[in-house]
Amino acid sequence: MQGPIEVKTGKAMELIDITPKIQAAVSASGITDGICFIFNPHTTAGLTINEGADPDVRDDIIKGLKEIVPLNLGYRHLEGNSPSHIMATLTGSSLTVFIENSRLVLGTWQKIYFCEYDGPRTRKVLYRITP
Amino acid sequence: MQGPIEVKTGKAMELIDITPKIQAAVSASGITDGICFIFNPHTTAGLTINEGADPDVRDDIIKGLKEIVPLNLGYRHLEGNSPSHIMATLTGSSLTVFIENSRLVLGTWQKIYFCEYDGPRTRKVLYRITP
Amino acid sequence: MQGPIEVKTGKAMELIDITPKIQAAVSASGITDGICFIFNPHTTAGLTINEGADPDVRDDIIKGLKEIVPLNLGYRHLEGNSPSHIMATLTGSSLTVFIENSRLVLGTWQKIYFCEYDGPRTRKVLYRITP
Repeated sequence: MQGPIEVKTGKAMELIDITPKIQAAVSASGITDGICFIFNPHTTAGLTINEGADPDVRDDIIKGLKEIVPLNLGYRHLEGNSPSHIMATLTGSSLTVFIENSRLVLGTWQKIYFCEYDGPRTRKVLYRITP
Repeated sequence: MQGPIEVKTGKAMELIDITPKIQAAVSASGITDGICFIFNPHTTAGLTINEGADPDVRDDIIKGLKEIVPLNLGYRHLEGNSPSHIMATLTGSSLTVFIENSRLVLGTWQKIYFCEYDGPRTRKVLYRITP
Repeated sequence: MQGPIEVKTGKAMELIDITPKIQAAVSASGITDGICFIFNPHTTAGLTINEGADPDVRDDIIKGLKEIVPLNLGYRHLEGNSPSHIMATLTGSSLTVFIENSRLVLGTWQKIYFCEYDGPRTRKVLYRITP
């Protein structure tokens, strides 16, 4: 059971909660117990799992990444988005989440986020669910 | 075959070797050949694989993360632990380790670490072993 | 279906495209639809997926990592390669890539890279392909 989900981002950088879309895919799969693998096919974006209760955490993660990755460093890539590529490598391209009783097994405060580092764009995320 | 393991951390930040507990779970599973997936359900902690021979490496990784992630940046999240959330995103939430002959397939110097970024706390880690 | 592939690195730090070798392993496996897991057994190296069209991106990622991770910080590990260990933890030890029609499912610009952080050396990468 697999498929893409579409994610529309609205800013240059933001974290978008895709948990409801992934959960819907899990529910539709009919697989009650297994693993959901999520993959980001873009090179200036990422996937992460982090706190969902306070939206300030999402903003603080973006603020931190902008400070951690030098925005100007004499980069050679002419598109000018090398910091976005570096953020993609720091965050990672895939997630692994367990499934029990047809539900994603996440910690109390965890949500699954698509990380936009070079938006706004229309992006997609791939998932694959196995028993 | 799945389950949680408990990890008690003793400092604000530290790397704790959970390899023996994960190997015990693999041995108990009876699965001789497959994959062990490990998942961290916390938002101010992480999982990593790194050197286990010299304990100084663990300390140096913590020292490096404290320098890489700005500890004060006008963060908005009121709990004051935004740097811990950022470290969680940089480190990642899951690990994939192969199993052969009932043993985790790790490099000579590799150990599996739980990364505490906002302790001390009693934490848990989830694993799932598939043939 | 599993195995190691060998990677010879030529510099202290560099990203090496291992997509052709991983694709060859997928093709040889006879598995047309499934998942390819890739694991790095070294503690001063990593794996990442990023842009392959412009080789400048690879160089910019290395340049960025050297700036992000402090090269001198009073590290205690006597081998002197603590920055390489920290880069390994930031990048991650494994990748998950889907397979459809016997091909790795990668985005238009994506390539799979072995990240050398303490070379040059002869390294290996492990893969495991499941239906």
